[in-house]
Amino acid sequence: MRIGVIHGPNLHLLGQREPSVYGKLSLSAIDERLKRRAQTLGATVESRQSNSEGDIVSWIGEGKQWYDGLIINPAAYTHTSIAIRDALLAVDLPTIEVHLSNVHKREAFRHVSYVAPVVMGTISGLGAFGYELALIALVEHLQASTR
Amino acid sequence: MRIGVIHGPNLHLLGQREPSVYGKLSLSAIDERLKRRAQTLGATVESRQSNSEGDIVSWIGEGKQWYDGLIINPAAYTHTSIAIRDALLAVDLPTIEVHLSNVHKREAFRHVSYVAPVVMGTISGLGAFGYELALIALVEHLQASTR
Amino acid sequence: MRIGVIHGPNLHLLGQREPSVYGKLSLSAIDERLKRRAQTLGATVESRQSNSEGDIVSWIGEGKQWYDGLIINPAAYTHTSIAIRDALLAVDLPTIEVHLSNVHKREAFRHVSYVAPVVMGTISGLGAFGYELALIALVEHLQASTR
Amino acid sequence: MRIGVIHGPNLHLLGQREPSVYGKLSLSAIDERLKRRAQTLGATVESRQSNSEGDIVSWIGEGKQWYDGLIINPAAYTHTSIAIRDALLAVDLPTIEVHLSNVHKREAFRHVSYVAPVVMGTISGLGAFGYELALIALVEHLQASTR
Amino acid sequence: MRIGVIHGPNLHLLGQREPSVYGKLSLSAIDERLKRRAQTLGATVESRQSNSEGDIVSWIGEGKQWYDGLIINPAAYTHTSIAIRDALLAVDLPTIEVHLSNVHKREAFRHVSYVAPVVMGTISGLGAFGYELALIALVEHLQASTR
Amino acid sequence: MRIGVIHGPNLHLLGQREPSVYGKLSLSAIDERLKRRAQTLGATVESRQSNSEGDIVSWIGEGKQWYDGLIINPAAYTHTSIAIRDALLAVDLPTIEVHLSNVHKREAFRHVSYVAPVVMGTISGLGAFGYELALIALVEHLQASTR
Amino acid sequence: MRIGVIHGPNLHLLGQREPSVYGKLSLSAIDERLKRRAQTLGATVESRQSNSEGDIVSWIGEGKQWYDGLIINPAAYTHTSIAIRDALLAVDLPTIEVHLSNVHKREAFRHVSYVAPVVMGTISGLGAFGYELALIALVEHLQASTR
Amino acid sequence: MRIGVIHGPNLHLLGQREPSVYGKLSLSAIDERLKRRAQTLGATVESRQSNSEGDIVSWIGEGKQWYDGLIINPAAYTHTSIAIRDALLAVDLPTIEVHLSNVHKREAFRHVSYVAPVVMGTISGLGAFGYELALIALVEHLQASTR
Amino acid sequence: MRIGVIHGPNLHLLGQREPSVYGKLSLSAIDERLKRRAQTLGATVESRQSNSEGDIVSWIGEGKQWYDGLIINPAAYTHTSIAIRDALLAVDLPTIEVHLSNVHKREAFRHVSYVAPVVMGTISGLGAFGYELALIALVEHLQASTR
Amino acid sequence: MRIGVIHGPNLHLLGQREPSVYGKLSLSAIDERLKRRAQTLGATVESRQSNSEGDIVSWIGEGKQWYDGLIINPAAYTHTSIAIRDALLAVDLPTIEVHLSNVHKREAFRHVSYVAPVVMGTISGLGAFGYELALIALVEHLQASTR
Amino acid sequence: MRIGVIHGPNLHLLGQREPSVYGKLSLSAIDERLKRRAQTLGATVESRQSNSEGDIVSWIGEGKQWYDGLIINPAAYTHTSIAIRDALLAVDLPTIEVHLSNVHKREAFRHVSYVAPVVMGTISGLGAFGYELALIALVEHLQASTR
Amino acid sequence: MRIGVIHGPNLHLLGQREPSVYGKLSLSAIDERLKRRAQTLGATVESRQSNSEGDIVSWIGEGKQWYDGLIINPAAYTHTSIAIRDALLAVDLPTIEVHLSNVHKREAFRHVSYVAPVVMGTISGLGAFGYELALIALVEHLQASTR
Repeated sequence: MRIGVIHGPNLHLLGQREPSVYGKLSLSAIDERLKRRAQTLGATVESRQSNSEGDIVSWIGEGKQWYDGLIINPAAYTHTSIAIRDALLAVDLPTIEVHLSNVHKREAFRHVSYVAPVVMGTISGLGAFGYELALIALVEHLQASTR
Repeated sequence: MRIGVIHGPNLHLLGQREPSVYGKLSLSAIDERLKRRAQTLGATVESRQSNSEGDIVSWIGEGKQWYDGLIINPAAYTHTSIAIRDALLAVDLPTIEVHLSNVHKREAFRHVSYVAPVVMGTISGLGAFGYELALIALVEHLQASTR
Repeated sequence: MRIGVIHGPNLHLLGQREPSVYGKLSLSAIDERLKRRAQTLGATVESRQSNSEGDIVSWIGEGKQWYDGLIINPAAYTHTSIAIRDALLAVDLPTIEVHLSNVHKREAFRHVSYVAPVVMGTISGLGAFGYELALIALVEHLQASTR
Repeated sequence: MRIGVIHGPNLHLLGQREPSVYGKLSLSAIDERLKRRAQTLGATVESRQSNSEGDIVSWIGEGKQWYDGLIINPAAYTHTSIAIRDALLAVDLPTIEVHLSNVHKREAFRHVSYVAPVVMGTISGLGAFGYELALIALVEHLQASTR
Repeated sequence: MRIGVIHGPNLHLLGQREPSVYGKLSLSAIDERLKRRAQTLGATVESRQSNSEGDIVSWIGEGKQWYDGLIINPAAYTHTSIAIRDALLAVDLPTIEVHLSNVHKREAFRHVSYVAPVVMGTISGLGAFGYELALIALVEHLQASTR
Repeated sequence: MRIGVIHGPNLHLLGQREPSVYGKLSLSAIDERLKRRAQTLGATVESRQSNSEGDIVSWIGEGKQWYDGLIINPAAYTHTSIAIRDALLAVDLPTIEVHLSNVHKREAFRHVSYVAPVVMGTISGLGAFGYELALIALVEHLQASTR
Repeated sequence: MRIGVIHGPNLHLLGQREPSVYGKLSLSAIDERLKRRAQTLGATVESRQSNSEGDIVSWIGEGKQWYDGLIINPAAYTHTSIAIRDALLAVDLPTIEVHLSNVHKREAFRHVSYVAPVVMGTISGLGAFGYELALIALVEHLQASTR
Repeated sequence: MRIGVIHGPNLHLLGQREPSVYGKLSLSAIDERLKRRAQTLGATVESRQSNSEGDIVSWIGEGKQWYDGLIINPAAYTHTSIAIRDALLAVDLPTIEVHLSNVHKREAFRHVSYVAPVVMGTISGLGAFGYELALIALVEHLQASTR
Repeated sequence: MRIGVIHGPNLHLLGQREPSVYGKLSLSAIDERLKRRAQTLGATVESRQSNSEGDIVSWIGEGKQWYDGLIINPAAYTHTSIAIRDALLAVDLPTIEVHLSNVHKREAFRHVSYVAPVVMGTISGLGAFGYELALIALVEHLQASTR
Repeated sequence: MRIGVIHGPNLHLLGQREPSVYGKLSLSAIDERLKRRAQTLGATVESRQSNSEGDIVSWIGEGKQWYDGLIINPAAYTHTSIAIRDALLAVDLPTIEVHLSNVHKREAFRHVSYVAPVVMGTISGLGAFGYELALIALVEHLQASTR
Repeated sequence: MRIGVIHGPNLHLLGQREPSVYGKLSLSAIDERLKRRAQTLGATVESRQSNSEGDIVSWIGEGKQWYDGLIINPAAYTHTSIAIRDALLAVDLPTIEVHLSNVHKREAFRHVSYVAPVVMGTISGLGAFGYELALIALVEHLQASTR
Repeated sequence: MRIGVIHGPNLHLLGQREPSVYGKLSLSAIDERLKRRAQTLGATVESRQSNSEGDIVSWIGEGKQWYDGLIINPAAYTHTSIAIRDALLAVDLPTIEVHLSNVHKREAFRHVSYVAPVVMGTISGLGAFGYELALIALVEHLQASTR
């Protein structure tokens, strides 16, 4: 089981950026934890980050060849990118959306999501641990469908 | 660690009700799984279901005395109950909101949530397994804060 | 043919409450007429009234066991209750919605209905006689489907 | 008791047009049934159909001379014609609005009605039988007011 | 002069719940003060609290038999309950609406009130003392109308 | 100077239709008055009424050949007809819009006008006399432009 | 017959200000014309202009003592002043609203009028001549009501 | 304890203006009652009325020097004046807003208040007596804070 | 292959009407060109124009008997006619919608189309040549489906 | 005549991605057809695809140097990119917008277009053939302007 | 070069009023700085402040006679005064709008500006220094246009 | 003092692109002027332009290491990019937003800014000179904070 993890814009600044909102862990620390968790679940993860909407669209488009499922935190693009939504529709891989912060506690424009309606499910507000939950759920789901 | 689980209206019909949307598991089967999962995590869970907004408000109000955290699936009341929101604000317990289905794939009125902005986080669209993820996250959170 | 009739909040005050809007007949007089009409149609009706959204949700949930069809006047809950909508979706019984007054002559918030899109049809503005029409239509429908 | 029945645009195609939505009965068959039902109720009905908003406005305007009450299915004009609304206000005859399909199950623009607020009541979603219910109700109403 | 006082959802938690918003007085302390104030005004008060919309609807419906006027703090139901509005319309008793906090300083959804348009007047933002002012005003009003 | 006068839907019912809103004068009486007024101003008027949007569009389209200016009371079509707006744009004749009643005292949907932005000016709420004022203004305008 | 004429903000700049929109006549020239027209109609007019909402409110408030009717061009305050609306409601004098330009050809915020719903009628887009039409209509109206 | 009372536009017409909405008392009678009530409470009141938004802004701006608290009925300016809101924010005096009529029974534009979110509390719909209640509450508040 | 072409309101004025917006070609010249183009494609076209919504509804209703496909320019009715939409739904013929001007460069109300969602496709802003493109596309489509 | 063709995000997946919506042709097959069609029209085409909004903005910006006209399918960026709109405004080349699917049959957010108001015209819903129609129209347009 | 400076409502309270939002400088200190800055630029400034919308409208109206350009901080009237907008349109002087605070960080109703669309430009959020920048820009602009 | 200057999409076309809106200066000429102005102020500036949202996000993210403050003209991304907003929030550098044209004179979608609420202040409509004003203000601000 190979899981692709896509981190959206500004997430490379994690740990430095508004720690009261996004936590103190850096992105590489999060990726490290995800890798360890994957091992215990018998899966592998591959993480990428980009500030570019186009890169993320391209990575998703290539996803079908390389991954069995996706975990995506589209960050700011959650609320503005129909292109990412279309890419997810096009590859049609089991996908879980993760948000570090509880977007419903923030500005109204963060309550709109172009991504949520085209993924399996969403985990938000549970910090970096949300990625690990997504991984557990995705592995559970993939195992259930191959049973 | 004692966790209260509150199931909202119509969830007593789980398994019978639109199985393509909500899955085939009955509510008692879900509660059974939650109990087993809780044991492995060193926690206890107590589940209740009601179709009455007032009951749910009352149970939350009593929550502080009996529980260390809450898991709530407010079902239809998610989108209409300010009273449940106010109850959660009043008790101020660590709470995770769970939805079986991906509410963003459904009618627009299900995209509005009075509950999401006052809880720690939300897990939606991951079926009955979402409750177990919420339990894992809540236990993790409570352990982290007592460390 | 057994038909369940559910009267929503404040309908127990019929006859006393704003008679110019809702007519002079009491609820028991309406139920009496419905029973007589049912007899002539070879059906039985059972009527219940509640001011509690939760009770109505519960009654609908039990409906499949006891009734072949439902007549419901959700009164004020028409415009605010997603829980009642979900209950009707869950039991999936042939149902007709009745309103005594013409809701479109009243405040804008009464023009929104969470119930109308999940029932067979709606009869409004025809007073207490609307219940009898609903009964005639429901019996006609049930006979047609068993033919 | 003379009842005028007005069928709006595209209803001449009934039976051919989307039978899963509008039923398999032709308009003349519906009119035939209405006539038979009228006989049993001691009334006469006269039916007309037009695709032209202007014709319908004119027919309503003449209604006071020829009818004791009206049954109208304004079809698509329900949602766009203020002229038909004004005509109904001008003649002020007891009128019942009928819709074959449940308009609340369809596009949002079909949830707006210029006609509903100026008629006695509305029957929708009960198919061709809805016309017969309207006739029963109108006769009942006219008898009650002349008693 | 008998005055009924109805406290809505979560008000049983007063004193414990967000004291910076709602004050430090418990509900029984407030009721005690109201009773003393009533004595000095030659009136009696009877207070009830419920978290259930249905209970509140029922209590209002019975109001005409037992009270000359009502004081109601519908709390969260202010913004969501058409059923309570309809109950107040049905009994048509002189009624004053009280809010402890200034609802206009809070979320936009608290600026909408289904209750305000059907009561005599509203007192908000003046804390527990608002109930006493409502009592003074109601007694003044009842005396003026019987003069 | 030849002035065309176009009366929209339901205006043939004037005098009979809601006299408290539209006055007691019949349409032919109004046209008679307009003719007399025209004589004193050295102009001729020609009046037509139709309930059909298509007729009115056609008449306006022919207007350039026969008239120096138009007076139009589009009645209900004011608020719904883009076709009449386009016809007025196409012929580009000096035109004044007249409304018998003050449309701003009525339903919100009557506050929208597709016609007002493409005519010279509007006279509303001044009853049948509004047509005479429009005639005076149109003659004044035509004289001023030929001076 | 004494008619008060009230000119709102910026109208003292007429003739200088955007002549392509508002015409080349100065305000005193308009007032002069109105006076001459009044003489021929057996009436007297008194004109005032102010840039201050408060002055206009005060003048209307005094209107009942001095005038039989009012002509008002509230200019920019048309779209923003509820105080002027309330003053007109308070004095309840026959009033006609005049606008020099066709406000419906301009920005959307000029399509909203707080004044239109509380006056007899409105004349717009007919330039300075609109005041004279308003005077003719007001005199006609006052004569009709004293006949 | 010195209390400033500010009456907004058109309130000088009280008693004459729409008595069914605003009551029969003149403004000076109300001010007289307030003075008497103040004496019994050991306070002094000073009342001013203006139709000018600018005057009211200026008076509030001077308030800090002369008063311990304010009572304000901004009348029509409630719904349109951000300047008055800003003045109240600038002086930051304990202030209670009073409305004679129940604004929620009236037009939708009267449901918006720029003032309510920046004052302690609001009393509406209780007629002239509302001012006295505001005075009682303000004195109570000032005594409590100096205790 | 027989193609029906329906021109909506005001299109009979083409060439005269706002040539900068709609071009200099008359409607008969356009129809002539369409006929010549049809010949080269081995198809026949039949064109009709009407200002009446009802006529257009009727023509579409008859379409199934006479045509293999439709080209329609509903002009102003694009934005207001649900009846034309319903007629197109009823006959279910391959249909292409044509607009001479680019409707998105014009008023906001021209951006709404009741017709676009029920046709195969739309060609707009390409002038009279757009009809020829529609014909080419329709013939291509009909040939592809019979291959 | 040199024509630039720009394909927006996800179009590189054509043929694989949701074939029921977008057809079975790959992007290179479409480009091949366009080239052949261009030859028959005496023109050359150059096609590029990018998932990056910035690339598309840059390509348009360079367009003036290399092309006589543009064909653009902005895909998801149609609905979100003001930058692409500004680029088209800046180069001011004859441009036709193409959409493979009928966007009006899809989600409401796809009905908004930032691009449509700044291009010559739009062709949508006619599949891959729509590109060829755009090419025919563009060549026709360029020939007409150089005649 | 003579520059008029107009300060809107509540700005006379600067220095006292919410210093964290508006800074600690008094209005006269700001005016003093502006005068000194003007001297270095070879210009003169004249400052006025008013709480009255009418005064500001009048001052702008007189502007053309006395000034070569205007600097205006309309404060609260920015968001509510069409009269000030109309005055600026009428005099058509080069004008720069200044806001001390960043209005986009505050309530939504402060994001609407009636003034911005009719001035040359806007400087906001840069405190008292914003006035000096406006002066520099205005002098630069006037010099450029007379070069 | 080192200031970073970021120019958004299409600004590389300055001088060529719609000169009546954006002026005749090229971007390099503007940067040249900024450099000279910086020298006189004892600061250095570094300018970059990109059409890619992702590049701009990345540059801002690196900003903290290299600059003391930022000047940004996000052009079209002002109205659509939450990612740029989040980047500015993350680095938290003193930033001034510049717009060449007065965005409030243009389309409504340009009145929305995701950037304005997270920067110190905004300068718009003052052409290329606006950048110089921003530089003056930023230097002033940085000097004041280090004093």
